[in-house]
Amino acid sequence: MGKVVTLGEIMLRLSSDAGIRIAQSENFSVHFGGGEANVAISLANYGHQVTFASKVPANGVGEAVKKHLNRYNVDTSDLLFGGPRLGTYYLETGIGERAANVVYDRAGSSFAMMETIEWDSEKLFAGVDIFHISGITPALSDSWKKQTLILIKAAKQAGCKISFDINYRGKLWSKAEAGKTIREILPYVDYCSAGKLDAQHFFEISSYDSELAAKDNLYCYKKMQEKYPNVSVFYSTKRKVYSASVNALTGTLWANGNYYESKCHQIDPIVDRVGGGDAFAGGVLHGLLNKDNYQKVIDFATAASALKHTVHGDCNQFSQEEVESFLALETGKIIR
Amino acid sequence: MGKVVTLGEIMLRLSSDAGIRIAQSENFSVHFGGGEANVAISLANYGHQVTFASKVPANGVGEAVKKHLNRYNVDTSDLLFGGPRLGTYYLETGIGERAANVVYDRAGSSFAMMETIEWDSEKLFAGVDIFHISGITPALSDSWKKQTLILIKAAKQAGCKISFDINYRGKLWSKAEAGKTIREILPYVDYCSAGKLDAQHFFEISSYDSELAAKDNLYCYKKMQEKYPNVSVFYSTKRKVYSASVNALTGTLWANGNYYESKCHQIDPIVDRVGGGDAFAGGVLHGLLNKDNYQKVIDFATAASALKHTVHGDCNQFSQEEVESFLALETGKIIR
Amino acid sequence: MGKVVTLGEIMLRLSSDAGIRIAQSENFSVHFGGGEANVAISLANYGHQVTFASKVPANGVGEAVKKHLNRYNVDTSDLLFGGPRLGTYYLETGIGERAANVVYDRAGSSFAMMETIEWDSEKLFAGVDIFHISGITPALSDSWKKQTLILIKAAKQAGCKISFDINYRGKLWSKAEAGKTIREILPYVDYCSAGKLDAQHFFEISSYDSELAAKDNLYCYKKMQEKYPNVSVFYSTKRKVYSASVNALTGTLWANGNYYESKCHQIDPIVDRVGGGDAFAGGVLHGLLNKDNYQKVIDFATAASALKHTVHGDCNQFSQEEVESFLALETGKIIR
Amino acid sequence: MGKVVTLGEIMLRLSSDAGIRIAQSENFSVHFGGGEANVAISLANYGHQVTFASKVPANGVGEAVKKHLNRYNVDTSDLLFGGPRLGTYYLETGIGERAANVVYDRAGSSFAMMETIEWDSEKLFAGVDIFHISGITPALSDSWKKQTLILIKAAKQAGCKISFDINYRGKLWSKAEAGKTIREILPYVDYCSAGKLDAQHFFEISSYDSELAAKDNLYCYKKMQEKYPNVSVFYSTKRKVYSASVNALTGTLWANGNYYESKCHQIDPIVDRVGGGDAFAGGVLHGLLNKDNYQKVIDFATAASALKHTVHGDCNQFSQEEVESFLALETGKIIR
Amino acid sequence: MGKVVTLGEIMLRLSSDAGIRIAQSENFSVHFGGGEANVAISLANYGHQVTFASKVPANGVGEAVKKHLNRYNVDTSDLLFGGPRLGTYYLETGIGERAANVVYDRAGSSFAMMETIEWDSEKLFAGVDIFHISGITPALSDSWKKQTLILIKAAKQAGCKISFDINYRGKLWSKAEAGKTIREILPYVDYCSAGKLDAQHFFEISSYDSELAAKDNLYCYKKMQEKYPNVSVFYSTKRKVYSASVNALTGTLWANGNYYESKCHQIDPIVDRVGGGDAFAGGVLHGLLNKDNYQKVIDFATAASALKHTVHGDCNQFSQEEVESFLALETGKIIR
Amino acid sequence: MGKVVTLGEIMLRLSSDAGIRIAQSENFSVHFGGGEANVAISLANYGHQVTFASKVPANGVGEAVKKHLNRYNVDTSDLLFGGPRLGTYYLETGIGERAANVVYDRAGSSFAMMETIEWDSEKLFAGVDIFHISGITPALSDSWKKQTLILIKAAKQAGCKISFDINYRGKLWSKAEAGKTIREILPYVDYCSAGKLDAQHFFEISSYDSELAAKDNLYCYKKMQEKYPNVSVFYSTKRKVYSASVNALTGTLWANGNYYESKCHQIDPIVDRVGGGDAFAGGVLHGLLNKDNYQKVIDFATAASALKHTVHGDCNQFSQEEVESFLALETGKIIR
Repeated sequence: MGKVVTLGEIMLRLSSDAGIRIAQSENFSVHFGGGEANVAISLANYGHQVTFASKVPANGVGEAVKKHLNRYNVDTSDLLFGGPRLGTYYLETGIGERAANVVYDRAGSSFAMMETIEWDSEKLFAGVDIFHISGITPALSDSWKKQTLILIKAAKQAGCKISFDINYRGKLWSKAEAGKTIREILPYVDYCSAGKLDAQHFFEISSYDSELAAKDNLYCYKKMQEKYPNVSVFYSTKRKVYSASVNALTGTLWANGNYYESKCHQIDPIVDRVGGGDAFAGGVLHGLLNKDNYQKVIDFATAASALKHTVHGDCNQFSQEEVESFLALETGKIIR
Repeated sequence: MGKVVTLGEIMLRLSSDAGIRIAQSENFSVHFGGGEANVAISLANYGHQVTFASKVPANGVGEAVKKHLNRYNVDTSDLLFGGPRLGTYYLETGIGERAANVVYDRAGSSFAMMETIEWDSEKLFAGVDIFHISGITPALSDSWKKQTLILIKAAKQAGCKISFDINYRGKLWSKAEAGKTIREILPYVDYCSAGKLDAQHFFEISSYDSELAAKDNLYCYKKMQEKYPNVSVFYSTKRKVYSASVNALTGTLWANGNYYESKCHQIDPIVDRVGGGDAFAGGVLHGLLNKDNYQKVIDFATAASALKHTVHGDCNQFSQEEVESFLALETGKIIR
Repeated sequence: MGKVVTLGEIMLRLSSDAGIRIAQSENFSVHFGGGEANVAISLANYGHQVTFASKVPANGVGEAVKKHLNRYNVDTSDLLFGGPRLGTYYLETGIGERAANVVYDRAGSSFAMMETIEWDSEKLFAGVDIFHISGITPALSDSWKKQTLILIKAAKQAGCKISFDINYRGKLWSKAEAGKTIREILPYVDYCSAGKLDAQHFFEISSYDSELAAKDNLYCYKKMQEKYPNVSVFYSTKRKVYSASVNALTGTLWANGNYYESKCHQIDPIVDRVGGGDAFAGGVLHGLLNKDNYQKVIDFATAASALKHTVHGDCNQFSQEEVESFLALETGKIIR
Repeated sequence: MGKVVTLGEIMLRLSSDAGIRIAQSENFSVHFGGGEANVAISLANYGHQVTFASKVPANGVGEAVKKHLNRYNVDTSDLLFGGPRLGTYYLETGIGERAANVVYDRAGSSFAMMETIEWDSEKLFAGVDIFHISGITPALSDSWKKQTLILIKAAKQAGCKISFDINYRGKLWSKAEAGKTIREILPYVDYCSAGKLDAQHFFEISSYDSELAAKDNLYCYKKMQEKYPNVSVFYSTKRKVYSASVNALTGTLWANGNYYESKCHQIDPIVDRVGGGDAFAGGVLHGLLNKDNYQKVIDFATAASALKHTVHGDCNQFSQEEVESFLALETGKIIR
Repeated sequence: MGKVVTLGEIMLRLSSDAGIRIAQSENFSVHFGGGEANVAISLANYGHQVTFASKVPANGVGEAVKKHLNRYNVDTSDLLFGGPRLGTYYLETGIGERAANVVYDRAGSSFAMMETIEWDSEKLFAGVDIFHISGITPALSDSWKKQTLILIKAAKQAGCKISFDINYRGKLWSKAEAGKTIREILPYVDYCSAGKLDAQHFFEISSYDSELAAKDNLYCYKKMQEKYPNVSVFYSTKRKVYSASVNALTGTLWANGNYYESKCHQIDPIVDRVGGGDAFAGGVLHGLLNKDNYQKVIDFATAASALKHTVHGDCNQFSQEEVESFLALETGKIIR
Repeated sequence: MGKVVTLGEIMLRLSSDAGIRIAQSENFSVHFGGGEANVAISLANYGHQVTFASKVPANGVGEAVKKHLNRYNVDTSDLLFGGPRLGTYYLETGIGERAANVVYDRAGSSFAMMETIEWDSEKLFAGVDIFHISGITPALSDSWKKQTLILIKAAKQAGCKISFDINYRGKLWSKAEAGKTIREILPYVDYCSAGKLDAQHFFEISSYDSELAAKDNLYCYKKMQEKYPNVSVFYSTKRKVYSASVNALTGTLWANGNYYESKCHQIDPIVDRVGGGDAFAGGVLHGLLNKDNYQKVIDFATAASALKHTVHGDCNQFSQEEVESFLALETGKIIR
């Protein structure tokens, strides 16, 4: 089993019940999530030794974050307590033609307001196999733009593989700003979650034929690889959105000059889509830590993501054995 | 923005949870609804100044009705308090092949028992653009049969446009009785919600070709228009019922001798179908008050109705901006 | 109306909410079920006089079982109180590609631990038309292996028709063990619920062509009939599992050398699949007691089973009139 | 064990949660109750053979009533189906200084609208030990005023003991009207639930000293006994209302010229007070059927009533053994 | 009836269920509150024409605030939409010895961030009888320190009575800062909610005898009156905290040189204490608008506050009639 | 901070809601608990490094146990997976005069069925300060009777302090059996939770004066100390049960020949009493690890236990800081 550190912001999610709007809701269900935290939980579920580093307020809400992570056996020794608040977002689940609606209230959070690196990098990365971080972190502040790169370099030097999920959010920064930072980070990255839109927005790679989606992915990976030969694995999902309740999901991966694709999962109905991408990333990193062959890596990761869509909350709830038996079993047959 | 008065009965709806029958239910969720009240809320959501006139008992249940309407900014100065009770109905939500089941307990309500018009018509209709009423009201009692016509004439004289939703309910009166009353009302109507079945039942218009549903609607509108040239807009939806969970919905409208049709909305899954027609009527009246072109009127109204199907309760929960962005956006994409 | 005795184990079912795993559940909903108890409730719903004989612990949990059965008007005079515990199982509802997951905790139950027949057989079977029992009972213990046959013989002698549902559960006994016992029981059986897999596992009947499922059923019934000419009716469902949320269900029945098939019900979405087979068996026995023609028997039973899939809990919640009106009505149309 | 018939109206109770007003409630919990139905359930819990005769609408709500009664093993063969509706009331639970608030919506119910006796009295009362009825029934209509007396006479003639609970409700009839009817009924009554206020309102018995409550009860019983020597047992509770959450309850009983009093139960906190009096009456009738000594009768009945206050819903949920062990055990000690 | 404007911040309250800590909560119930908003709702409940002026974000959470206020018929034409976020706080209800715990997350709210007065003061105060504001508003920012005084002066000039609730919160500003601002405001105030602690902290009035609490209040009012002869009414509650579940509450008021005191309400159990003071202030202002005699004013206000403690949420839920009947009725008697 | 190992059975608790009986419950809330597990969580909350050793089934229910412990940062590396089932118990919460009711279904659990010690004792106890175990473990089987002593000796040898909670349960073994085993264990014990009843039942120490409860405790401790001079600390609570909702709780402790007593906590109302004793034991062990003076130890422990009574579930939910601030603060004052 591997040793992994993920670092980033974790937020409180307040969701109204299905069929109830935020503006009329008499109660919200409580979940916690963030790309790096979700990946941490996935990997801990699979038996890896995982630390999630972040900062949360020193109150009951911050304590709830700690309990959430501990529940899934994620190490919280590097979860710092202090600062003003926990970033929050409100989720109104989509149904059928109606898309989900997210209201962000994340500004001024304890994590976003960090001005310096409050961890001892040497200690943090000692003996760690993978350091995972996403493009949301440098988007949070000028300070985090610098610190992200410093942390990545420190991890690299400590011998970690660097896993980076581009995860571009237009509400946080412009494509120009993001591109500049991402291009500074990429030379240090080993495993990169990046899709066609990323290729187009940040690396000036236009897919040549919008009709042939599968070939597009292959083409974009190849071109990104040319620009960043240091990246050993690129991966992303192709998602066909029939409605907010029905999606089709295929995983794709590029490694050693080869392109791999999972079977296409028909997700009908979707219980909760948030965190589906993180479950996919967690599955890929597990496969890489496990040194599985790449076809197995992408099959496992896509199955993990499909399973995530069937449970409430941002994080994966399935063990390695459960994902594998899901891959092996006939669809939807009762287990008894 | 326009000024609108709607008048009619509003009922308490007690619903069991999905998958639970009325006869085994340990709790009922509480909603309030009625055609005219639902239309009032839709129009208030779109920013119009709307009054709902009705009568409810002077107790906590009547007070709940007032709070429900106020919540959506509907003026309740003409909501009278008194009389014996609030009409009630029980709803067992349909699922898949199993249809919804409605148990009515509406007899003897404060509204149905009204013997005279207790509002000052002159004050009620002063400066009002549209007076909206439905065919349920005259069905409630002999007294209401007379009063409905008196109210419509008073509104007409006060300069209101008359909006009438035929809304035939076989449990309340026979087709013969209904037809007689409806034919007395129609000469005063400006905007009429009426479909193929209404054309057939009350105006002796048989659609010539049951296979060509779209053409049927056009044909029926044309024929009704010939009988009632005073009506400037006819409208209704075509609903294809695949199951209680999946419907396809298309809006149709006839105005100035032209026929308009919206795109077909695939509603899958349906959260709550009750009030879907009222959301449609509310959308049409909004478009007419806004003087939108007729294609936009029918597109907006049908989108509003489709959205209503995705939320619990009898009334629409979406603003003009939300309906319009729903029309513009790609189906089911998460908004964040 | 007929008089029926069913006898078997009834268990507590603890289910997590949809989209919530057992391992994270903060509450479980409570249902009670077991093949014979579920059949008893179905038949009581249809107006028959039904006794369910079993044994439950003498505490609040046992009392809950009694209240559950009484609620549906099942006679509990032969529900014994005593012994160590009520068998329990945990259900994690399946959704889409993810199958339901069942965790059994049934060992050592008051029923399974019964060493002798604690009822007065003569009294139990007096005037009874049908005695219904399943293949789960002899699987519970060596003692029950013997007692099951003794009870069946006693019922036969008292003039009851014997109804037997093979209901093989691999977790309880091996195919070899089961086959031996089942083959001892079959010579006494009048109505037998048995499908293709049963034919293959216990009677060495291999379907000749896996592509032609319908024909397979016919073939298997014919072959089983040859072995057990005493059985007057064989029946089972064909279930096509598209996913845990969508199944297609067709009922099949063999009687007097003829094969009958219901229409195919598309069940989308499934609310709760557990007990679907028992609702089917209950429907068949009702039709037989009613002396309906066989086509009506299989149509009614399959409709009853399809309806069961739309409600939570192990037992059927529909009266004879409701099943019949479901058969007659157009799919999913609101009843009001 | 005895055989008992109770007859009267049963209503749907819709309660808001504690701390939530009716006018703001988003869901109501569902209970069913009525004096005679509650007494029926108490007696069935104690093992007697009890029939509840009433009339409910032939729909899911009426079916729910049947299931409610069956659940507690009350015989519903004489529960008639038909008529317009089930009487309903809304309950807002009292807390501390704030009293409970009840909104009635009971007019026009299937039971109240009965114009003739629809049961075969001879069959209904055959072999019955006690016929229990309350003063609410004659208050419901002129027709019921007559029928109540006819039923009581028929039961008397059939050899039943007549149990009558005066249960005066000022919202249903005036004291004058009630007094006239009650005085017609009393000569046929064997067991009578009547307190000081009843003595004062209907029998012109003024308590001589309001300070000495205990003596008052004794005095009133003595005087009522003088007027109606046919009554063998009078009983009622003395309730000291400290607040809606805390009451002290003492049972009192008069028989054979002797006065009996239970210990005083401090009920703190009250979970649900509705039905407390019916649980008391049920306890008294059980003791009388059991031929317990009068001190035991009143101790058991008061304990049963105190226990009822600790559970939600109108009806008692405790067996004879549980009431007796409650009497025997030390207050509030955990049983494990 | 009067016309009132209240202005201030309104916040989202997220509460865990009783007996569940914030850090373990799986859902939060949603309420909205703030001193001035709560007073607005109380007064609207009593039939006054009330406007609440504030600023909330232009999203579903802000829309929820509007719906909350509208529900109670508070005019929201002066509720502005814009700015970053809605202030939030988390509430862990106290029970017995354990006090309630509040976690604030209110910094950076749309209201607190307002730099200029965005209302047209002239229009806002036209025809208004009372302008109510609290000491929380000037504590929110330097800008609000200035604007509060400007608004008060504008209201005074427009002929409004100025109602000011000192409401000191030590988490927002120091006593020194607060005292300076409060002393600038007081010369414009007509009705002032201020207690012994306020007298001591901000006006250098030490109560002479801590044992004689009642006399203290009188003494403090007299001294404050000497300093601010412009104030016509001072009022506050005396609260004896036995535990988080039990308090005793007495209202006190000073007017025209006389001291008035309500009866002492024993509040046992407390359902929700938050907003109790605002319900009291709302009751006082109602009495003053109604020109009730001062004893009635303080009796009504204290009863209103006691009732508020029996319902969930920050705002009062009782009408004038209900408060008056609560005053008149015997404690805790069921109303039916 | 200390290092602690606790070892014992952990069970699933299924509770009905307050005011709802087990026999009528439609859902159960889920908690996990056991004396040693609860002590482990308390100590982990206070920042100690705690391992809980036990055995649970390898399914979703066992996984839920692991997640429960991890949530509170208890190390589960020594939580074994395997065996037949998790012991279960049903809890019906007591209210007022009605005591709580517990239905056990614990026989045959994975832990109780362990035949050998499956941990490596040397590794388990390495560097451990305290090994905590209770008298429930040897009561579970003959095998556990032996293993308990073996484990205690191994821990002793490894240098651990032995903490033993007698925790006698009459449903599991007789006083004679228990006494024999307990007397074998006591010579190895350092910290012993034992009260007056234990003294009487197992050590033939009769308290000399039942009126002077406080002195009794002192007397019993002294006498037990004489018998077991190796025990350095004896402790227990005195609980006065006014009702199931109100208890008074005082902690007592004996060390170095001195007797210490906490203040008396009035617990009103009790939310959940289960685990109150374990919270007390956890508080004592924390104080001992912290080398607090004995008065502080007993004050802290009793406060921790009082707080536990105000939250749902078996385990303590408060940190060291929270318990200390509870000790320091005025009762029930809101913290904001």
